[in-house]
Amino acid sequence: MPIVHVNVWDGFGKEKIKTVIQEITKVFVDLGVPEYAVEVIVHEIPKSNWGIGGVPASEKFKDIA
Amino acid sequence: MPIVHVNVWDGFGKEKIKTVIQEITKVFVDLGVPEYAVEVIVHEIPKSNWGIGGVPASEKFKDIA
Amino acid sequence: MPIVHVNVWDGFGKEKIKTVIQEITKVFVDLGVPEYAVEVIVHEIPKSNWGIGGVPASEKFKDIA
Amino acid sequence: MPIVHVNVWDGFGKEKIKTVIQEITKVFVDLGVPEYAVEVIVHEIPKSNWGIGGVPASEKFKDIA
Amino acid sequence: MPIVHVNVWDGFGKEKIKTVIQEITKVFVDLGVPEYAVEVIVHEIPKSNWGIGGVPASEKFKDIA
Amino acid sequence: MPIVHVNVWDGFGKEKIKTVIQEITKVFVDLGVPEYAVEVIVHEIPKSNWGIGGVPASEKFKDIA
Repeated sequence: MPIVHVNVWDGFGKEKIKTVIQEITKVFVDLGVPEYAVEVIVHEIPKSNWGIGGVPASEKFKDIA
Repeated sequence: MPIVHVNVWDGFGKEKIKTVIQEITKVFVDLGVPEYAVEVIVHEIPKSNWGIGGVPASEKFKDIA
Repeated sequence: MPIVHVNVWDGFGKEKIKTVIQEITKVFVDLGVPEYAVEVIVHEIPKSNWGIGGVPASEKFKDIA
Repeated sequence: MPIVHVNVWDGFGKEKIKTVIQEITKVFVDLGVPEYAVEVIVHEIPKSNWGIGGVPASEKFKDIA
Repeated sequence: MPIVHVNVWDGFGKEKIKTVIQEITKVFVDLGVPEYAVEVIVHEIPKSNWGIGGVPASEKFKDIA
Repeated sequence: MPIVHVNVWDGFGKEKIKTVIQEITKVFVDLGVPEYAVEVIVHEIPKSNWGIGGVPASEKFKDIA
């Protein structure tokens, strides 16, 4: 514990995913949780499968990676 | 709020996914939730990874997309 | 299939939850999915456990049920 | 790895939950996964929040625990 | 985007949950994500429902909150 | 009920996934749950997206499939 599931858009990038894993883990370590106990799973979701306000992000946010 | 995770089989299709996003959002808007607050994430799952009654859907439902 | 996980705030109410189950199911039936195959699970989350923009909804949206 | 999320109805019972944890772990151990690496999280869901075929299980399956 | 689901043991505490929400949001803001777009949902799980290595955490980690 | 989400690393393999579906279903059948009611969804996660102790499994466990 803890187990963290992160959902981001496809295209977020492997470097940022690596940073997210590292920094979210650090959030828990700073609260006294042992580092080895933190698991972070990142789910990459196509923008066409992610709706905000009823519209796929692929249409709503065409210009944002 | 709300956040909705939808799991469908691979092959459900982008058009249907778009409709799902639109119509599920509408369900909440009809209940008084502001449209912009609704997020819908669709996870496409290979039929071989989806078991029903102990058997992958790829075997059990060979003929259904 | 499909399996739908809905996350709402605590206090959304059993009547609205029942409507959400009914109407989300209808979204898929309208797309040709058999009614019996649709499962909808609603997770009620305390507003203090739901952060938006870094702040729990219990603080940010004090006056909204 | 693996991380397993199990959703059951409220009332499934702590003894059965303990068995589920033990036996699902064994499934992976039998496949060569180290025992310590398996995490199983059981989410207990009120039957009124679990819709099957558009109806809450609390109505559809009144007589089943 | 992103949407983050955090699973912790019951008893983690509201103060720590608030910190987790704040700090995980900050991880994404530091990567260029707008603060308002980050949602963090914390699921509190009874230790008896969280298995590690086939044993509920309520037995394995009796003395750890 | 139940609905089971299994997260494994990419490369776990279709044969093992099929076994996992079959055997997890059996765990519930042995507890009195009707076989047809058990659904198991397997999410395959790239090792680069799965952090353990702050490091992607692709780095930490280079030599393990």
